[in-house]
Amino acid sequence: PFPPHRRYSSSAPCPHVAKSGNESHLEPQSFNTDLVIQLASTPNPKPDVSTFGSTFTDHMLTIEWSATEGWQAPLIKPFGNLSLHPACSSLHYGIQLFEGLKAYRGDDNQLRLFRPMLNMNRMSKSAKRACLPVFDQSELLECIRRLVEIDQDWVPTTDESSLYIRPTFIGTELSLGVKKPAHALLYVILSPVGAYFSVAGALSLWADPKYTRAWRGGTGDCKMGGNYGCSLYAQYEAEDYGCQQVLWLYGEDHQITEAGTMNIFLHWINEEGEEELATPPLDGIILPGVTRQSILELTGKWGEFKVKERYLTMSQLCSALKQQRVKEVFGSGTACMVCPIGHIVYQGESLHIPCQDNNSQLTSRIVKELKDIQVGGCTNTHAH
Amino acid sequence: PFPPHRRYSSSAPCPHVAKSGNESHLEPQSFNTDLVIQLASTPNPKPDVSTFGSTFTDHMLTIEWSATEGWQAPLIKPFGNLSLHPACSSLHYGIQLFEGLKAYRGDDNQLRLFRPMLNMNRMSKSAKRACLPVFDQSELLECIRRLVEIDQDWVPTTDESSLYIRPTFIGTELSLGVKKPAHALLYVILSPVGAYFSVAGALSLWADPKYTRAWRGGTGDCKMGGNYGCSLYAQYEAEDYGCQQVLWLYGEDHQITEAGTMNIFLHWINEEGEEELATPPLDGIILPGVTRQSILELTGKWGEFKVKERYLTMSQLCSALKQQRVKEVFGSGTACMVCPIGHIVYQGESLHIPCQDNNSQLTSRIVKELKDIQVGGCTNTHAH
Repeated sequence: PFPPHRRYSSSAPCPHVAKSGNESHLEPQSFNTDLVIQLASTPNPKPDVSTFGSTFTDHMLTIEWSATEGWQAPLIKPFGNLSLHPACSSLHYGIQLFEGLKAYRGDDNQLRLFRPMLNMNRMSKSAKRACLPVFDQSELLECIRRLVEIDQDWVPTTDESSLYIRPTFIGTELSLGVKKPAHALLYVILSPVGAYFSVAGALSLWADPKYTRAWRGGTGDCKMGGNYGCSLYAQYEAEDYGCQQVLWLYGEDHQITEAGTMNIFLHWINEEGEEELATPPLDGIILPGVTRQSILELTGKWGEFKVKERYLTMSQLCSALKQQRVKEVFGSGTACMVCPIGHIVYQGESLHIPCQDNNSQLTSRIVKELKDIQVGGCTNTHAH
Repeated sequence: PFPPHRRYSSSAPCPHVAKSGNESHLEPQSFNTDLVIQLASTPNPKPDVSTFGSTFTDHMLTIEWSATEGWQAPLIKPFGNLSLHPACSSLHYGIQLFEGLKAYRGDDNQLRLFRPMLNMNRMSKSAKRACLPVFDQSELLECIRRLVEIDQDWVPTTDESSLYIRPTFIGTELSLGVKKPAHALLYVILSPVGAYFSVAGALSLWADPKYTRAWRGGTGDCKMGGNYGCSLYAQYEAEDYGCQQVLWLYGEDHQITEAGTMNIFLHWINEEGEEELATPPLDGIILPGVTRQSILELTGKWGEFKVKERYLTMSQLCSALKQQRVKEVFGSGTACMVCPIGHIVYQGESLHIPCQDNNSQLTSRIVKELKDIQVGGCTNTHAH
């Protein structure tokens, strides 16, 4: 289903000498030579079902970079452990970022990636923010396509499942000074996945301003590792309150920002009496989700209600709930696609959010239309 | 110089089953069995000088933990690469933390650690915040002492140099779900170091509110990797403005918080006309530095001027500079100890800070007294 191995423009080796300041990383550099492929001798058994992201395919992609030699040849090789220097800057200073996208098998048995250039683009932005070198986005995507093609038997055939693709980019500087890494490793691993959340049904969220996920002047709009590590403690405090995830608030007015590791949407009758689908704007503290963007574009095209990026506060949500103006609240992300939210625990109260129990079936409709695209309803998202 | 190998209380294996919520990590668990030592066959040559943290000694300490089996036996083994699963949660979600302390060789040839229990204690706090398991602080310190003892020939003899000790603690969960790791690795590496900053003399700082190091509800008071990765970009923007480090501001009133990776001190005549040594309070966004605490205690004992943890804003600093009420500004940290600040670029102006060029020699005096303690002037900080 994927095109045959395209030979990359065989550019001469392009030494990339680090300049002072941030400019040195602004120009993407081609990978140094053609992709090298080393196949595994014996393929691993394919699992039926698995915990999200715990089983991996037979191969992985690795591409090394150094400030003196630039990008090396991309290498597809048998899946295995990384050998990292213990002073590696990704382990000490969180110089790391990742992406998440999925390959779907359609009814026609074709494999499709869902809008992968959006992930390549976001990954480039994260790389700049993390002071990691930028790369040629199309070249990387081509290498990922080749990896998925080689491990194509791992793409699940059942509904609700897919092949999760995890590009990862880490600093491998091997000294302890806090500085821009002179060595880096970009790698991609693949995992056949089912549903992200083990419990079906609507999520419950714990909303408390005591923990902040992201802040202005920080990295909340990039997919950097540190955004996640610092969120974990709050997630377990949420469990103490009987909730599954955190509803991240921001500022004195308790702005609604994200839900767990998802963007958040409110489908409601707004203060002006208009039916509206709203999500917080990309103002620096919100991750620019691919699913988020797709939902905005999809529902915008329907033209059936107002679709708006706008600030939403807890007091606006509480008023709307009292006045029965809320239709649905849901999270969105690549791992879960769309996930309805059923309860929010806030200031000692458990707020019931209408969702599957009323006539508003927006989430179901979005899921159906996105799935149709992912498994082949829309030709321009084909992997080839 | 270190005591002979103490046998740890040989407690029965203590399986540590993860409970739900955050409580499971609150009770420190003993390491499972005695320390195991595997010596390197051939010691590496000792360097004369090196870039900070780029040369490492012959051995390292590793201690593995899992939710089902608890802490395993601490192992001192030849220094070498770590073998990590590519889905390792420390590489994806910044589930990582570190410490930094130093061993000093005194004129009496004795080795001393400077207030190491403060580091063990802070490391425990970081571990809780990162959802990594807590550990017995005294046991870990004992293992570190043994490691330093084995590599004691690496502790430099020259002035200005020491053996930097880097305890590191990472999540090694090997699945991609964002959750508390069920596997973790605590390791310690040692590096003989000279001065942290390659350029001698007073530092220049770039102060701009566009980047934020830490924020309330975040992890700025813990030594977690994500705090550093997200600061790197600003550091290189500082270089674009001709500065070496960032002066991190916070809030609308541009509070002065930290300088690069250091705490910050202002020695001045305050608004009430009192001579004062001031540093921002530990309100959640300030790293509780060991050197910071030592300076507060040391200068407090002198009783020669007011010593105060208080908020300091850029406008207060600017007024004081205009009225020539500033004596010195300096950063503090384990890597550099004390570092005078000579310039601050703020709102298009370069503010000159008096330091070595006037009669106020507070930094020199602090450095001298701290060094006296580190190399043996004070018996209660002896390593044994």
